[in-house]
Amino acid sequence: MATAVGGGTLRDVMLERSPFWMTQWEYLGVVALSLAIFIVFHKWIQKIASTLFIFDTIGLALFTVVGYEKTIDAGFPFWTAWLMGMSTGAAGGVIRDILINEVPLIFRHDIYALACLVGGLVYTVGMWLGLSDIISQLGCAVSVILVRVFAVRYHWQLPTLRDEES
Amino acid sequence: MATAVGGGTLRDVMLERSPFWMTQWEYLGVVALSLAIFIVFHKWIQKIASTLFIFDTIGLALFTVVGYEKTIDAGFPFWTAWLMGMSTGAAGGVIRDILINEVPLIFRHDIYALACLVGGLVYTVGMWLGLSDIISQLGCAVSVILVRVFAVRYHWQLPTLRDEES
Amino acid sequence: MATAVGGGTLRDVMLERSPFWMTQWEYLGVVALSLAIFIVFHKWIQKIASTLFIFDTIGLALFTVVGYEKTIDAGFPFWTAWLMGMSTGAAGGVIRDILINEVPLIFRHDIYALACLVGGLVYTVGMWLGLSDIISQLGCAVSVILVRVFAVRYHWQLPTLRDEES
Repeated sequence: MATAVGGGTLRDVMLERSPFWMTQWEYLGVVALSLAIFIVFHKWIQKIASTLFIFDTIGLALFTVVGYEKTIDAGFPFWTAWLMGMSTGAAGGVIRDILINEVPLIFRHDIYALACLVGGLVYTVGMWLGLSDIISQLGCAVSVILVRVFAVRYHWQLPTLRDEES
Repeated sequence: MATAVGGGTLRDVMLERSPFWMTQWEYLGVVALSLAIFIVFHKWIQKIASTLFIFDTIGLALFTVVGYEKTIDAGFPFWTAWLMGMSTGAAGGVIRDILINEVPLIFRHDIYALACLVGGLVYTVGMWLGLSDIISQLGCAVSVILVRVFAVRYHWQLPTLRDEES
Repeated sequence: MATAVGGGTLRDVMLERSPFWMTQWEYLGVVALSLAIFIVFHKWIQKIASTLFIFDTIGLALFTVVGYEKTIDAGFPFWTAWLMGMSTGAAGGVIRDILINEVPLIFRHDIYALACLVGGLVYTVGMWLGLSDIISQLGCAVSVILVRVFAVRYHWQLPTLRDEES
């Protein structure tokens, strides 16, 4: 539940709203249903774990689009929308990792958050070019998916700084 | 302080309010007084630790009632009130455990949060039956206390999923 | 970025505002610029790390003044302003330490947060004496810096409670 709605909750609190899941029960209903399905089929699901990657990536893309759109609708500038798109998509996993006391995965596989930023950039360029909303949103979602798929496929990593003395 | 006011702070931020302790000094006054008492009497208090369990449980029950009531007053649906009652009661301990870098106790002894949910359910049923507020609140508080006391006494545990391969 | 804007974000959410950095790009611009400078000069910067202490301390003092002022402007009482000054100054580092999964430094070197509280107290006394805003602010900033410098120089530590049995 923290993974699914945590990022959007953080975004809504920053946008001075009550979290989206507090007024419509469907969101938590889907989380509960997913959990029930996982409990029943968990052995089978763990066997196909690698094929779940594409669902995770599609989810990331959709969350980025929703986060971007809500932030623009609330009257904030485009670069805030990039960060809120990233927050919606990636912060749920960070909250999950904090709760289970591990270093957030996102700090080890940085291309996750970066894909959201690239998607936000594409959205902004689309709007600047005067494209329709739906085209900009599609462009955003597709670029999130492409960046993430290529990053995993070609093992792209963000460079890290290391102390050379240590 | 994080344990005492953390859960209610999270609830108030989600309900789009400033945290309750920011306008009335009595809340933090009680926290400071408790800390002072603990510092002076800590050896003695640690000896009676097991008898503190009932105070912790009464606190959990009261926090659940307050969280439920504030959420309904703010116009949110009943199931949001369940979650906010749980947040008020149990999230303070989660924040404390994150701050001291441990896996939150609540993930190991799940009956804590579940007791709040049962209490919320009783509150809702009481309201549906047209009982007076005070009766519903009492029913909520008593059921939180009973669930927790029975859970500890009879070692109730939520089931966990394990990889059978590992 | 979490260290730089995290404390102020927490403060703004509690004051029922959207975080300060969401509407003016200059804040994140400075963070990005600092990061770029660090990446280019990191070997040299690590050599002069001890001289960075004074910048950190000046930052802490300024953050305390800003946090205090914003809280008073939002109509909250003076002791809330102490806590929000402390949050603005010290909570960024706590968020950073939670994210990298370490026990927050602040719990091991408590004089950091305490310096903010002393600064807030000086601010309040200045206002009570009818001094001008700028004098109270200077007094606040100077006392934060002095407390921190003396604490480090003379190894002041807050007392800790230990179980004598263990």
